[in-house]
Amino acid sequence: MGIEIERKFLVKNTSFKDLSFQKNYIKQGFLNSDKERVVRIRITDDTAFLTVKGVSNKSGTSRFEWEKEISKEEAQDLMQLCEPGIIEKYRYLHQVENHVFEIDVFLGANEGLILAEVEISNEDEQFISPSYLGDEVTGQEKYYNSNLSKNPFKNWA
Amino acid sequence: MGIEIERKFLVKNTSFKDLSFQKNYIKQGFLNSDKERVVRIRITDDTAFLTVKGVSNKSGTSRFEWEKEISKEEAQDLMQLCEPGIIEKYRYLHQVENHVFEIDVFLGANEGLILAEVEISNEDEQFISPSYLGDEVTGQEKYYNSNLSKNPFKNWA
Repeated sequence: MGIEIERKFLVKNTSFKDLSFQKNYIKQGFLNSDKERVVRIRITDDTAFLTVKGVSNKSGTSRFEWEKEISKEEAQDLMQLCEPGIIEKYRYLHQVENHVFEIDVFLGANEGLILAEVEISNEDEQFISPSYLGDEVTGQEKYYNSNLSKNPFKNWA
Repeated sequence: MGIEIERKFLVKNTSFKDLSFQKNYIKQGFLNSDKERVVRIRITDDTAFLTVKGVSNKSGTSRFEWEKEISKEEAQDLMQLCEPGIIEKYRYLHQVENHVFEIDVFLGANEGLILAEVEISNEDEQFISPSYLGDEVTGQEKYYNSNLSKNPFKNWA
């Protein structure tokens, strides 16, 4: 149980691919994708989680998050109850000193979109920006995965 | 993980109170109360659960259900993210041969409503009807707890 504080950026080149120390396939669906509460089922290569997120603060930086590991079999069953719009992506991890950047390369209906996130311990914490970071989109709701599920990148004007 | 098969009835007298072998207070909220998928947080005297339910079959008798025990502290935090309309009730348990009837006496905005449910192992299974059972309301959506949360008994015409 805790508060997640993170900042999100567009990605302007693929240099993160060589820099990354890990790459995983992620599939996720939403049992609820409301603004007020998100209930997410996520399956990765090895693990599966049920996650509940609350509303964001005003700046969009921090958000209540609760997570429970479940079995992949349970997750696969629950995935079938999810809203239409399952999200698939590759997640690359890139360590820069004491920060880990998560770079999501979306597939399917969100192909073409690449986003980078970095978790910080407080809103003012500084970090070194890798060269692939583009414009900041922290708090822009259309980039929430719960919204990409309903209004995917390929439908954007 | 499994399918829940049950039948639901109105309750026409309070004889169940003396017949019951257990009485518990239940508080529950919904992280999602859609028709297609319900995500419920329930706290009882001793335990707390997160439950996901799918759509019902045509007769309203059977429904996919998945349940995970969580700590009461986690449940209390998650309850705060739930949709408006927390449900409170006393649940009485009454055993009749190999069936257990659950009788819910609703409080708060649903005060005055009493419902009995019995879980069966298949749709045709027979059971002895206790004298307090009234009209059957299996599959009537307004009696779903997820709907009582949004449109409570006190608002019914």
